[in-house]
Amino acid sequence: MQGFDVDVVVVGAGFAGLNAAARIVAAGRSVCVVEARDRVGGRTKPGTLSGHVVDLGGQWVGPDHRRLIALAARHRIPLEPQFEAGGKLIDYRGRVRRYEGLIPALPLLALLETDRVMKRIERMAAAIAVSAPWAAAGAADLDRITVAGWLDRNLRTKGAKAMMDIAVRAVFSAEPSEISMLFLLTYLRASGGLEPLISVRGGAQQDRVKGGLHPLSERLADEVGRGRLRLSSPVSGIEQDGDGVTVHVSGGEALRGRRAILAVPLALLSRIGAQPAWPALKTGLAQRSPMGSVIKCHVAYETPFWRARGLSGEAVSDAAPFSPVFDGTPEGARHGVLSGFLEGDAARTFTGKPPAERRQAVIATLTRLFGPEAGQPIDYVDNDWLEEEWSGGCYAGLMAPATMTSYGPALRTPAGRVHFAGTETALEATGYVEGALESGERAATEALRALS
Amino acid sequence: MQGFDVDVVVVGAGFAGLNAAARIVAAGRSVCVVEARDRVGGRTKPGTLSGHVVDLGGQWVGPDHRRLIALAARHRIPLEPQFEAGGKLIDYRGRVRRYEGLIPALPLLALLETDRVMKRIERMAAAIAVSAPWAAAGAADLDRITVAGWLDRNLRTKGAKAMMDIAVRAVFSAEPSEISMLFLLTYLRASGGLEPLISVRGGAQQDRVKGGLHPLSERLADEVGRGRLRLSSPVSGIEQDGDGVTVHVSGGEALRGRRAILAVPLALLSRIGAQPAWPALKTGLAQRSPMGSVIKCHVAYETPFWRARGLSGEAVSDAAPFSPVFDGTPEGARHGVLSGFLEGDAARTFTGKPPAERRQAVIATLTRLFGPEAGQPIDYVDNDWLEEEWSGGCYAGLMAPATMTSYGPALRTPAGRVHFAGTETALEATGYVEGALESGERAATEALRALS
Repeated sequence: MQGFDVDVVVVGAGFAGLNAAARIVAAGRSVCVVEARDRVGGRTKPGTLSGHVVDLGGQWVGPDHRRLIALAARHRIPLEPQFEAGGKLIDYRGRVRRYEGLIPALPLLALLETDRVMKRIERMAAAIAVSAPWAAAGAADLDRITVAGWLDRNLRTKGAKAMMDIAVRAVFSAEPSEISMLFLLTYLRASGGLEPLISVRGGAQQDRVKGGLHPLSERLADEVGRGRLRLSSPVSGIEQDGDGVTVHVSGGEALRGRRAILAVPLALLSRIGAQPAWPALKTGLAQRSPMGSVIKCHVAYETPFWRARGLSGEAVSDAAPFSPVFDGTPEGARHGVLSGFLEGDAARTFTGKPPAERRQAVIATLTRLFGPEAGQPIDYVDNDWLEEEWSGGCYAGLMAPATMTSYGPALRTPAGRVHFAGTETALEATGYVEGALESGERAATEALRALS
Repeated sequence: MQGFDVDVVVVGAGFAGLNAAARIVAAGRSVCVVEARDRVGGRTKPGTLSGHVVDLGGQWVGPDHRRLIALAARHRIPLEPQFEAGGKLIDYRGRVRRYEGLIPALPLLALLETDRVMKRIERMAAAIAVSAPWAAAGAADLDRITVAGWLDRNLRTKGAKAMMDIAVRAVFSAEPSEISMLFLLTYLRASGGLEPLISVRGGAQQDRVKGGLHPLSERLADEVGRGRLRLSSPVSGIEQDGDGVTVHVSGGEALRGRRAILAVPLALLSRIGAQPAWPALKTGLAQRSPMGSVIKCHVAYETPFWRARGLSGEAVSDAAPFSPVFDGTPEGARHGVLSGFLEGDAARTFTGKPPAERRQAVIATLTRLFGPEAGQPIDYVDNDWLEEEWSGGCYAGLMAPATMTSYGPALRTPAGRVHFAGTETALEATGYVEGALESGERAATEALRALS
């Protein structure tokens, strides 16, 4: 038996790992956080645009994100509302139209059907328990088909299909053909439904953190204590024995703890050799948890010219690659910013391409949506999450059909003395920073209980 | 610039890697094969049952498997026919029935529909080019849905649904809900259709290798040259520069080659750190290539008692976990063997369980199918491929919807100086040992061309 360096070794310094570590420190136990990157924050990341900090990753805060709101409040960092005054734009079947409210202007039948299917999906999601979606009534049937297959079966109008495709891409950074219907419903349920997820006011895009969301991970790291963090330390293996866990860091160093918390996306689990091997169902789940595909882009203009024309900056397209778009102007800035995403197939088309090519495609979409003024940007920045080695994609891990029913029960199950965190394992706001915080809390509770 | 240890470093000593290495040696170039396991053979593996060698992994040889047949002939190892004389059994809706031919005895409507849907699937598969299935007519639609979703839409009778479920499980070691319809068609196309894949005579189960298929990998390793093999050497990273490739082996050693061939399942790609990082579409594909789920089991009896009753030993079930079953009796043996599989959900139910529990479930199925004599085995052996760290499952990597159209073009694309082999990348007999051999040939050709 060897001695212990700490009570708990946490792998991963995103919001999940940091929150777990902060909880463990607060409980009077010792902790060390090991992180592959040279920075904290995981899937949040700061960038610079026209001299201001922008979020290249996670950005928005919803009114239900109570842990995230409390973290900002604790550090006296104010939230600012997402700008949403004015009309929205939709590029649909070759024409750009203006609309108000949640659902775009569509032919009447398409409008009625969109409304009906959204209500139906809300009802279906409400019947799912996030803690055990595989036990829901009809779970097997819902997990046999893709969202695309379900929509094909249940929608008649092209308009409603286009709307649902747009919504799914925006929420999951994936095509409707990539994910299981049961997974979609479970994910929606964890955030209170579809409407909150695609809404600004009252929804997941309601607020931003002044100065960017990323710096909150720095504050959380301060709470943990900088001396307890080891950056630039990829973990190569985890060994367990009767007493504890040895976490091997690339380069040869090893840390020994009584317990470990793994707070990395499941898609990266196989990078970490395990002795004894990870349980087969955990490995199978990791093989079946691909990350979403997204490139986040910000474009700066001399002024937020769309506001002067009564537009909110919010826009979606059924064909152009850059969708959805939001007003990303920092409060108090003189310049204007449009922020948005290349998602699913669009992200896969543009990953690995030169940034100039991406920029051109993004500006072309904005020009199509907002007119020639959008063709005169003063700055541009983007981040290709598909190329981030230590995320493997964003926003979150996805589940294709059959994964949730066959492997879901392995999601939060510890492997011996190793506990699992990460937004994918969250019961609330899965896929969001709030979910990451919640999962860290839960994993810390598990580890602390085991220590006592 | 450093010197080179060899022209080509091959990672993985399954049939794909060994065949690539043999080709490179035959071309007068130098090679080194690095293998994580302490043995060659990959997804083939020898076991012992009643004093005879049995295949715990890949086992059968079809008449189209010309490379595999040539390899056996080269080493004067005879093939023996899979025993198939007599009636077959189907356990369907609670009753065990006997039948002859390819399609079991079913109610007339179910029989007609099974015949019709199989012919339809054969026609659909025939329209696919294996080299670029994503370019086939209707590819996007076929890749939007699972096989389960397609069957639900296109079948009315319970009997035909049960038959297709049984066939899909047997061919893919997966549930129909796990895989994309386009993937299924492509896989069938690479082996000439569905009927050859589920047939004994004239199909993929026609022959076995006397003494087991696994030893052929030993002969192939002899062809490569034992001095060129490094067993028990997991690869931790691959670095590329302007001149060549450095393959880092766990423990610190490194091998330098002008080119490398990676002949491991894509599901294991993320275990191998890369500098520069793997291209994003390769990583995305690797995240979306889960391995099938299968536990292979052999049961020995005093005699092949089913033969005396005019049964071939072939049996399937729509409910019991152990299906399909074949006569696995070695030619010339006095005892009898029934060999079969726990596949898909059944494999996931029994992985991690004590072998005695698996044995009990297997014997119970056999007793249900073949009567009380099946309850008196004299020996039992199984292999849980879900727990094999260096395979991650079997028989092969699978694709859920949207994977083939979004990531398929990355399948065989080299990453700089690294080429990709493995049965998943094969254009012929994908998923089989024959496909592994073909993929090794193709990767060797690529590497040799680049060297010349």
